Amino acid sequence: MTTPPLANRLAAECFGTAVLAAVLIGSGIRATGLSADGGVQFLANVLASVLALGMLILLLGPVSGGHFNPLLSAAFWWSERRSGTGLTTRELGGYVLAQLTGAVAGAALANLMFGRPLLQLSGHHRAGGRLWLAEAVATGVLMLLVLGLVRTDRARYAPVAVSAWIAAACWGTSSGSFANPALTLGRALSDSYTGIAPGSVPAFVLAQTLGTAGALALLPLLLGAERGAVTEVAVRP
Amino acid sequence: MTTPPLANRLAAECFGTAVLAAVLIGSGIRATGLSADGGVQFLANVLASVLALGMLILLLGPVSGGHFNPLLSAAFWWSERRSGTGLTTRELGGYVLAQLTGAVAGAALANLMFGRPLLQLSGHHRAGGRLWLAEAVATGVLMLLVLGLVRTDRARYAPVAVSAWIAAACWGTSSGSFANPALTLGRALSDSYTGIAPGSVPAFVLAQTLGTAGALALLPLLLGAERGAVTEVAVRP
Amino acid sequence: MTTPPLANRLAAECFGTAVLAAVLIGSGIRATGLSADGGVQFLANVLASVLALGMLILLLGPVSGGHFNPLLSAAFWWSERRSGTGLTTRELGGYVLAQLTGAVAGAALANLMFGRPLLQLSGHHRAGGRLWLAEAVATGVLMLLVLGLVRTDRARYAPVAVSAWIAAACWGTSSGSFANPALTLGRALSDSYTGIAPGSVPAFVLAQTLGTAGALALLPLLLGAERGAVTEVAVRP
Amino acid sequence: MTTPPLANRLAAECFGTAVLAAVLIGSGIRATGLSADGGVQFLANVLASVLALGMLILLLGPVSGGHFNPLLSAAFWWSERRSGTGLTTRELGGYVLAQLTGAVAGAALANLMFGRPLLQLSGHHRAGGRLWLAEAVATGVLMLLVLGLVRTDRARYAPVAVSAWIAAACWGTSSGSFANPALTLGRALSDSYTGIAPGSVPAFVLAQTLGTAGALALLPLLLGAERGAVTEVAVRP
Repeated sequence: MTTPPLANRLAAECFGTAVLAAVLIGSGIRATGLSADGGVQFLANVLASVLALGMLILLLGPVSGGHFNPLLSAAFWWSERRSGTGLTTRELGGYVLAQLTGAVAGAALANLMFGRPLLQLSGHHRAGGRLWLAEAVATGVLMLLVLGLVRTDRARYAPVAVSAWIAAACWGTSSGSFANPALTLGRALSDSYTGIAPGSVPAFVLAQTLGTAGALALLPLLLGAERGAVTEVAVRP
Repeated sequence: MTTPPLANRLAAECFGTAVLAAVLIGSGIRATGLSADGGVQFLANVLASVLALGMLILLLGPVSGGHFNPLLSAAFWWSERRSGTGLTTRELGGYVLAQLTGAVAGAALANLMFGRPLLQLSGHHRAGGRLWLAEAVATGVLMLLVLGLVRTDRARYAPVAVSAWIAAACWGTSSGSFANPALTLGRALSDSYTGIAPGSVPAFVLAQTLGTAGALALLPLLLGAERGAVTEVAVRP
Repeated sequence: MTTPPLANRLAAECFGTAVLAAVLIGSGIRATGLSADGGVQFLANVLASVLALGMLILLLGPVSGGHFNPLLSAAFWWSERRSGTGLTTRELGGYVLAQLTGAVAGAALANLMFGRPLLQLSGHHRAGGRLWLAEAVATGVLMLLVLGLVRTDRARYAPVAVSAWIAAACWGTSSGSFANPALTLGRALSDSYTGIAPGSVPAFVLAQTLGTAGALALLPLLLGAERGAVTEVAVRP
Repeated sequence: MTTPPLANRLAAECFGTAVLAAVLIGSGIRATGLSADGGVQFLANVLASVLALGMLILLLGPVSGGHFNPLLSAAFWWSERRSGTGLTTRELGGYVLAQLTGAVAGAALANLMFGRPLLQLSGHHRAGGRLWLAEAVATGVLMLLVLGLVRTDRARYAPVAVSAWIAAACWGTSSGSFANPALTLGRALSDSYTGIAPGSVPAFVLAQTLGTAGALALLPLLLGAERGAVTEVAVRP
């Protein structure tokens, strides 16, 4: 496989993050408009978001890797910086910029589709130690999952496994499992169900970053020190 | 693989579109009869519809391609018109006719199964720029997905990926993500939950067509200029 | 692959049908006990039932075929009666007896687990032309799906495709999509959510049988006249 | 495939059980906080739990087998004790200890993330013959499923098949389908939706053990006496 040109890869990251942000934000608006039950609203919002995520990873994974998440791109850059097979620092910068741009565009698209101002600031404050712990846990397991699948040569399962984890984490943690700085930015730009006040963003992103660092530290213990050490799916030890 | 005879292919497109339309319309009637919560109604309607869609693409894909959507057939006809591997113009006409016939038959079947007049006109007006934008987005991403999977030799994932996107788009856009002129016609013929007033149909179909055109324009940027340029599933770039 | 001994196959059909009937009936009791919304009740009942069904087809398919449905066994017996590769008439009798026994045992198990009399008769009358039409449609498409997957050498997809269709049909038809004479019998033996009055059973089974006959007639038109005529998954025609 | 070092395997079992327990307990707290409908609460709790379970089996299966369940480890130890391919008695002890430690840690993490005391005792009494019967059935089928997939060389399906069964059993049985002594312990340490009073734990674990013994006895009848006797997925017998 030849790596596609950087322009295509950046277009794929930008487009994918935009569609993901639009569905995430839009489904929150639609769910709160349709249902009177908070559980049904969140079920619909989570379901729509992870189905879009899985589809986008499947479609665009062969082009750009299907990251749509600056911390995931950074984790690949970091973990493969010595082998020369990962992103260069310059490519990483391009990826992050494309993802942030896409998230803003996706928020604007959701606002447009639902008849709201193009960009607005969310007034939903989200802060506190237990939410930051939750963000670190949700992001950390996400990184372990993706890096672990790659390390065991099973990246083909990423579309369904990542979607499964994000859905589980949305319900199982107290923060709603943002787990992605680009989407956190996008959410700040729509004053709706999935929103987060701009002032709450930095601490969320810091918690996500700490979770990613923890995952990088844990990875060798859980999945072996190098790629290919563990390769086969088995239920028996 | 030898292409099956055109008669079988047209029968498959007609039958599949009929079953799909019947489940789409029928599940809307059943969901509004069973639940008092608008979110639960839409969850059930969407779930039933995309599960039927995925099953039908899987079962009939090897026969006719499993399009069940005139714009999808048209997009294949257009994108492969030079290579001679796609539908001829005459075959495209047959496909569209079979799909429209199937959608009408499916609407009639749903009406019959739920004790309604065989065919009736929906009084549900759906119009406005933000709905049309939503239709263009939902349809455009659908086309990018299907054409992109074919272009990267991964059409085997279409049953699950198409279902995932349609479910995500139903919740993430403001229009309900019809994304299919044949089903739009079928919905107009049952005055129930999933209905659309006949007068609202042309603008919806136009928006879907524009979304399809946009997808054909974007495809080379996102997934490479020719078939086989990108072929392997990978999470890393 | 050597066909397993008949005793194992009958044990598998009996066990699988029992587990399926117990989950179908039990989840109906649990759902109506937990939720006040009719849509949520049916979502939970359908979800639990089709997940059990898919798991059982996967687990026991290699042993007995994973039918759990007298009409499906009969359809295989009929469609392969000339090639000598299907069930013999004597084997068919064993299968049907094992399935009916399993369904009764499963109903008893569900009643026991939920503190009800071991066996009881349902008082839920279900009758009328539109329900019978719905049963014929749900059963017919089920048969087309299973026979079609086998005919195109893709039986490995049966666990997920059959589950998808049954879930879609439960919502998309007006009868609740029993689509299985053994489960129809089991449902008659618990006076709870999924029940059917004994007097309503014969017409339901007749409608299911007519739907099966229709599927056998339609199969050559949709999927080719002989096994292997259509074999590859493709989205393009 | 070389078996990974025992330290990695124990870390994987401990980590996986902790994440699973945290999502199971956390999603129960979140669901009861968000929804007023008992059915929606349980749908969300079950969905989150089985998605986390499937993801963890997929990710960590190649390392430790992905058991996260003392009875499953014990069943492998027992069924392969003569062939020398399974766990040794000492390894089994390590697995069980790691799983119990993980379950306690996961309960503590859930309590922390939702602002509760680090560890607390549940006051939710769960007892009675029909609940114990339900636990035996849910656990027994789980063991048949996992051992059966291994015996037919299809362990690769475990992530999705185990998740499907647990979700089905949660709804189809009257006990909520704990089916795992480690998670039963973890649930006792959070006084929330998924809790179980410490006094109810021993009988639950005994019922789970009896169900496991029953599965080991039934396995040869349903899936053949030795590994490899049944190997191919087929819908036809």
